[in-house]
Amino acid sequence: MGFKLTDYEAYDFANRRHIGPTTREMADMLKVIGFKKLDELIDDTVPEAIRQKTPLDWGPAMTERDALYHMKEVAKKNKVLTSLIGQGYYGTTTPPVILRNILENPAWYTAYTPYQPEISQGRLEALLNFQTMVSDLTGLDIANASLLDESTAAAEAMTMAKRSAKSKSDIFFVDENCHPQNIAVIQTRAEPLGIEVIVGAPDDLVAEDVFGAIFQYPGTYGHVRDFTDLIENLHDAKALAVVAADPLALALLKSPGEMGADIAIGSTQRFGVPLGYGGPHAAYMATRDAFKRSMPGRIIGVSIDSHGNKAYRLALQTREQHIRREKANSNVCTAQALLAVIASMYAVYHGPDGIKAIAQSVHRKTARLAKGLESLGYKVEPEVFFDTITVNVGPLQGVVMNAAVTGGINLRKIDDDRVGISLDEQTRPETIEAVWRAFGGDMEDDSEKNREYRLPEANLRDSEFLTHPIFHLNRAEAEITRYMRRLADRDLALDRAMIPLGSCTMKLNATIEMIPVTWPEFSNLHPFVPADQAEGYTQMIDDLNDKLCQITGYDAISQQPNSGAQGEYAGLLTIRGYHASRGEGHRNICLIPTSAHGTNPASAQMVGWKVVPVRADENGNIDVADFREKAETHSENLAACMITYPSTHGVFEETVNEVCEVTHKHGGQVYIDGANMNAMVGLSRPGDIGGDVSHLNLHKTFCIPHGGGGPGMGPIGVKAHLAPYLPGHPERAHVMGPVSSAPFGSPSILPVSWAYCLLMGGAGLTQATKVAILNANYIAARLKGAFDTLYTSDHGRVAHECILDTRPVAESAGVTVDDIAKRLIDNGFHAPTMSWPVAGTLMVEPTESEPKAEIDRFCEAMLSIRAEAKDIADGKIDAENNPLKNAPHTVADLVGDWDRPYTRKEACYPPGAFAVDKYWPPVNRVDNAYGDRNLVCTCPPMSDYVDE
Amino acid sequence: MGFKLTDYEAYDFANRRHIGPTTREMADMLKVIGFKKLDELIDDTVPEAIRQKTPLDWGPAMTERDALYHMKEVAKKNKVLTSLIGQGYYGTTTPPVILRNILENPAWYTAYTPYQPEISQGRLEALLNFQTMVSDLTGLDIANASLLDESTAAAEAMTMAKRSAKSKSDIFFVDENCHPQNIAVIQTRAEPLGIEVIVGAPDDLVAEDVFGAIFQYPGTYGHVRDFTDLIENLHDAKALAVVAADPLALALLKSPGEMGADIAIGSTQRFGVPLGYGGPHAAYMATRDAFKRSMPGRIIGVSIDSHGNKAYRLALQTREQHIRREKANSNVCTAQALLAVIASMYAVYHGPDGIKAIAQSVHRKTARLAKGLESLGYKVEPEVFFDTITVNVGPLQGVVMNAAVTGGINLRKIDDDRVGISLDEQTRPETIEAVWRAFGGDMEDDSEKNREYRLPEANLRDSEFLTHPIFHLNRAEAEITRYMRRLADRDLALDRAMIPLGSCTMKLNATIEMIPVTWPEFSNLHPFVPADQAEGYTQMIDDLNDKLCQITGYDAISQQPNSGAQGEYAGLLTIRGYHASRGEGHRNICLIPTSAHGTNPASAQMVGWKVVPVRADENGNIDVADFREKAETHSENLAACMITYPSTHGVFEETVNEVCEVTHKHGGQVYIDGANMNAMVGLSRPGDIGGDVSHLNLHKTFCIPHGGGGPGMGPIGVKAHLAPYLPGHPERAHVMGPVSSAPFGSPSILPVSWAYCLLMGGAGLTQATKVAILNANYIAARLKGAFDTLYTSDHGRVAHECILDTRPVAESAGVTVDDIAKRLIDNGFHAPTMSWPVAGTLMVEPTESEPKAEIDRFCEAMLSIRAEAKDIADGKIDAENNPLKNAPHTVADLVGDWDRPYTRKEACYPPGAFAVDKYWPPVNRVDNAYGDRNLVCTCPPMSDYVDE
Repeated sequence: MGFKLTDYEAYDFANRRHIGPTTREMADMLKVIGFKKLDELIDDTVPEAIRQKTPLDWGPAMTERDALYHMKEVAKKNKVLTSLIGQGYYGTTTPPVILRNILENPAWYTAYTPYQPEISQGRLEALLNFQTMVSDLTGLDIANASLLDESTAAAEAMTMAKRSAKSKSDIFFVDENCHPQNIAVIQTRAEPLGIEVIVGAPDDLVAEDVFGAIFQYPGTYGHVRDFTDLIENLHDAKALAVVAADPLALALLKSPGEMGADIAIGSTQRFGVPLGYGGPHAAYMATRDAFKRSMPGRIIGVSIDSHGNKAYRLALQTREQHIRREKANSNVCTAQALLAVIASMYAVYHGPDGIKAIAQSVHRKTARLAKGLESLGYKVEPEVFFDTITVNVGPLQGVVMNAAVTGGINLRKIDDDRVGISLDEQTRPETIEAVWRAFGGDMEDDSEKNREYRLPEANLRDSEFLTHPIFHLNRAEAEITRYMRRLADRDLALDRAMIPLGSCTMKLNATIEMIPVTWPEFSNLHPFVPADQAEGYTQMIDDLNDKLCQITGYDAISQQPNSGAQGEYAGLLTIRGYHASRGEGHRNICLIPTSAHGTNPASAQMVGWKVVPVRADENGNIDVADFREKAETHSENLAACMITYPSTHGVFEETVNEVCEVTHKHGGQVYIDGANMNAMVGLSRPGDIGGDVSHLNLHKTFCIPHGGGGPGMGPIGVKAHLAPYLPGHPERAHVMGPVSSAPFGSPSILPVSWAYCLLMGGAGLTQATKVAILNANYIAARLKGAFDTLYTSDHGRVAHECILDTRPVAESAGVTVDDIAKRLIDNGFHAPTMSWPVAGTLMVEPTESEPKAEIDRFCEAMLSIRAEAKDIADGKIDAENNPLKNAPHTVADLVGDWDRPYTRKEACYPPGAFAVDKYWPPVNRVDNAYGDRNLVCTCPPMSDYVDE
Repeated sequence: MGFKLTDYEAYDFANRRHIGPTTREMADMLKVIGFKKLDELIDDTVPEAIRQKTPLDWGPAMTERDALYHMKEVAKKNKVLTSLIGQGYYGTTTPPVILRNILENPAWYTAYTPYQPEISQGRLEALLNFQTMVSDLTGLDIANASLLDESTAAAEAMTMAKRSAKSKSDIFFVDENCHPQNIAVIQTRAEPLGIEVIVGAPDDLVAEDVFGAIFQYPGTYGHVRDFTDLIENLHDAKALAVVAADPLALALLKSPGEMGADIAIGSTQRFGVPLGYGGPHAAYMATRDAFKRSMPGRIIGVSIDSHGNKAYRLALQTREQHIRREKANSNVCTAQALLAVIASMYAVYHGPDGIKAIAQSVHRKTARLAKGLESLGYKVEPEVFFDTITVNVGPLQGVVMNAAVTGGINLRKIDDDRVGISLDEQTRPETIEAVWRAFGGDMEDDSEKNREYRLPEANLRDSEFLTHPIFHLNRAEAEITRYMRRLADRDLALDRAMIPLGSCTMKLNATIEMIPVTWPEFSNLHPFVPADQAEGYTQMIDDLNDKLCQITGYDAISQQPNSGAQGEYAGLLTIRGYHASRGEGHRNICLIPTSAHGTNPASAQMVGWKVVPVRADENGNIDVADFREKAETHSENLAACMITYPSTHGVFEETVNEVCEVTHKHGGQVYIDGANMNAMVGLSRPGDIGGDVSHLNLHKTFCIPHGGGGPGMGPIGVKAHLAPYLPGHPERAHVMGPVSSAPFGSPSILPVSWAYCLLMGGAGLTQATKVAILNANYIAARLKGAFDTLYTSDHGRVAHECILDTRPVAESAGVTVDDIAKRLIDNGFHAPTMSWPVAGTLMVEPTESEPKAEIDRFCEAMLSIRAEAKDIADGKIDAENNPLKNAPHTVADLVGDWDRPYTRKEACYPPGAFAVDKYWPPVNRVDNAYGDRNLVCTCPPMSDYVDE
């Protein structure tokens, strides 16, 4: 019988879904590199000395069906009550059309940060809408494209005020009405920087004593007051004023700008972004024009392309990508792009009238709630408010709160006597009635009929906002659906092509990993619910942490940092806390190789350390002699070293153990940057090779999508001796202060990484690492001779990425890295990482998820570019007017006259480009310098949108 | 104070989301038409005599938030157990990547039927994959692109056999092992056609007596037998053999084709399509080459475009759009495109190895289950099986089934003694163990370790399937995600542009309406679960039916028909049943105006009636004198008349009451086709103007998306006297037989229409109708002089659509309807309905959901086409080589040489076309005739796919 029933095995997720090449393809690729077996390549690549001894193992990998089933069972352990806790987090309705077409749409969530503006015009426009929205609502001139969370934004505002204020004071005043987590994160940030924080009542502020002050608006207990006079006092004292404002309240209340504030920050969570147990959400920051160049974070600006057409791009990018290392004041780079896009679309969807209607409805319900409580004999604070009230119930606190929980509602516990209640867009009449019942009353909510207002007359807003036509689409879903589709279509993301970005690990974000993220059990939890309502989260986080500990060789994990850079900062704070606990608080020297990520030195500065750079040798490796010498020189004060492994040059350095030993010998701690963890999982553990702490980029190594520039998660793993000094949180028992608004950073995206671990199993994860290494070595081998790999190990191997040297074509043909990057757009690719860590190079990281066909398509594109460069070098084609210099080409180029020394076909269909399915960039090459000279960071006039 | 807190009202769904134009825009549009108020236009348009007296009212419209909340509460009343009932419906896992990127993606679900092949290449390829899959699995030459459900397919196979067999017999043999619903639908269909159905054991079949026979494979009780000998006997007797086969079983079992079958049918539900309480799912049909032109349903074929490039399109289309009216044998037109696409992607995703692995796993689990039951002392039938077994438990039946339910499992009740069990892809070891417990046992499932098989050796499949390279992508999710994206990008759907299709009502399919469809509470229910597990469905259907009764003026609704045409058929069957019950079974004359939908006469034939056409007058209205005369002539035998209201000419005829009266006078019943119900909701009720029965196209009027050619829902409403004769179902008490596999047709998409009614409220629905009429009259007014509207009321008004006369440009410039349609693609539009109901016209229906801007864009496109035609007529541009004749233009046109008498820009950017966001068709004009001459209906060789 020709047919054997046992011929086939069911596929598994690791090998058939997540990992790109098939077994047969891998064999072909190995042949190109010169190996017979994958393990031979791995043995040749990963030094024996650093290999981990026992394989990862937490039982067999789950099937998709079983993983979904298991995750749902765990999710159900979360109890989804209606939370009226407020404190910066509010119920909100994500419009279904936005939920489906953005949050659940790979065209949006798999996109990378818009460094390549030509393939990012869609999300750039959405983020510009966000900036315009923030600028309008806050009444300030310029806004950035989001920050990690409100508390981080508050801390950034403080350091920005320190940089910008003319006052020489080192004191920062914090309104006691700020949300507790804002106060705590500010305190965490201030201490290492030598800033003294005074928390007090606004009326106690002595403007002359401070360089700045922050006020919460409305206050965390509901108060709404006008800060105009206080701000004037501050200005008189050459100090700056920061207002942390709720954007929904700003629809009804006088804006921070109108009160004279210099900086406004806040969270846009309640603009349609699910609570998610604390995140991810997009915080915002806006400021006056005078301070725009001091503002941290990404800013989208308007510029022109090479044909003079309007084009968006990241403005002032030099502040970021080439962050000024030792002089940096902030390590912010990740934004919350996807969440900012959602919030901006919420504004486009509702428009100013809709937002105002929502704000009014929220307020009306709160006024009715307050009146009801008053009729029951309670004293409600404050007298005027927006959405939040406080009731002092004295010893009845527990009774009232428990009664509320029984009625399905969480109230806020404030000190021992008071109860806080914040209403929101989702509050239903039944909810208000249930609150009354919890307070012992029984009546009917009639707030939609009876319109009573208890806003302070003097603070009512009479200025317009969201006046730009983009916020005045006529609200038909047909129209906004098409708008979102058009924006998505302008962009190139992982759902259309490989994104071979070195150091960024743009691997598959499998749909199954995204599914639980929007389950109500994960997405509808307030971060400060009682622990017994979040048992599902606890179980998931514990399980994920266990696995990450096994993967890294560390003993404890903190999931609080919600970006890689914040992980670095949190990790260094942990080390700092450890030194301090041993009476070695004076240790303040941090050794950092010159090849490090720019965020490394910036993070070190943020904890008050001095950065001492260490040289690299000619192969890009750490110069161990230099390292040893500097460690000795600073032995007394050595706090830590920060290294990246495998190196940012894409090589497994053999000297890593030595570097760690030297550091430890001199009393320092070793921070191993986890950016390149995708080359290590299952093969090598930072905790084994000498690391004391590392952050992991879950959005690189563990499949959380980049979302067009955020969300991210940067948890840190530490050895046991550091565990007590991990970030704490005012909502929980803690030694150290928090670094994020929420105890677990951005927990609602953790199901992605968790699902990945469950589906892959230890063996699958290890295989993924091996294939990532295979794919990188395959590219290096295929492009050898055309674009040589700059750094390899002694054996000629690279790790999971390779740095292609493009300087020869620059010399021979004047073809720059930029030219190549833009020409790759014609081929239908996002460019590799440019000129980092070495100028004039491209760093390519294919990841394990790319099928061989796509990798080959990329290689063909690169080879054809090399051939074009040769034609230039050979004088066969003009050195200025050629496909590389004119790249990328648009359809508009095809339509117009054609007087170029190459054909339209050569322009648009270079090898690798799809024919029918070709990606067309909406603009030609964008002029960055023009944009920075003429900085415009809000939506341009509507006439610029005309697209006919 | 300049700011008034009460200035704003919260938006409501009807006016801000569903209805396109704003109030201000409507005022502008009314001005163009010549009215001041919308109600004045409506009064001028809808005759007083037919206006409904009381407004629709079921309480206020719900907000989105409340509607989602309410629907979830109702959904939760469904209890989702694990159903092992089988009987044609099985648990299956929709791969998340397919769920999100197809079923939940508007680019797929808002698409129209691919009549315009140039803008449908993506879904045409997916459907061609479906046909290839079916053809491969069944071992037959040609497959269609899906049918409504398995039972309908079985009935169609019977009538096809009748048409094709050389035997003169009128007897059709049905294997008693067919699923009961297949037997019942076959019986329903056979009776009016004079076909005698014999149900019996296959061994009792006397081939000489029959024109055909159908066998179920595997049988409904699990038996697997080889039908080769029986089929040979049938062929010897000039009869045809139909095999109803489970496609998953075919991965392991000899195919119908290999057994000699002439036709194979079945359901592809278990290829990733959720159970959905019975539908929608895609049924399939395949046949031998010899019978291809007799096969009902849509068939995708491969052809070429005007440049000779490969292009897909609907083959043999003349069979359908210009259905041969009185000679038609089937009224099939709607397919289940969206579901067929999902099933085909499931095959692409898993490939032959994966499908085989799934089939083996299902079988292995069944074998283990059987062995366990045997070890408990039960006798398991049959001895060999695939996934289904039957156990005779005698009087214990109730005990076992209840115990199973207690364990979370539904078993199948067969007669009074037997229990049926069907396992599936989703069956977990715990499930098998729970079944054993229900039978009194307690042991552990080890089926994944111990591989035992109980398939009949002789029937094992050794032929290959899914050999085409498209089923051999390497299964990486990265790859299939991109494949689906590319296909979606080739198509134009509602998520990018208006689809102004007369008679097709392509209105908004709001995301919120789609959300509940994929809730597990709606999607994971087997159609034959006990009633107490489907209380949510019952409540939803009852509530929707109540609203539809109020809307139509009827007294009862049947949700069983799952397409408009099937609604017609079911409605006529109901009338037929009514006549028969009164001893007037001889009535068999059906009056149908010549302007009717082609399905009308086809449906009449299907119930055994004779069609008598009624003339139209020069204005397209029914010629009442002719109608009266024919009614009198056939008074004795008049069964019914079938009319469409407002007429297919887009006009509210004033004579409708008279037509109904005449019909009733002669003892006939009035069938009012609901195709144009979008012009009536809230304004006029078919039940009030004389109708006895109507079908509603929920996929036209009530927002169910077209899905690229299905799903649809065609429920019928009837007056009380007809209610007893509505379609029944063997799973429920009934008088009449069923017309569909499942009691409620395709219930899992009913939440769409239900949500629409909840969100709009009666007033919103009425307003929608008014705006639909406004939009149509606006277009007619704007295009007057350029393209005049062919038919209007005496007042010069159209209803919700207008027929534009394009014959003048044909005469003056040789510009055909086709030229205009294809040129509209250059403008970024789907063409209006072409040459129906009048040759040389375009029927435009904008619906209420289109914003004014989009309607204006369409008008500009049409006006520019008119100007181009004038240039031809004036001799300014060549009559053959011009933008109209060469339309649509592709990017490839731009790239090549250009020797046309108009510019590239004129070609590609006519007024109305977007610049940056322009839609580019992937092919030039498709050659239909070539494709029909060279019929290829499976995937072409891979070399044709090369896209570089």
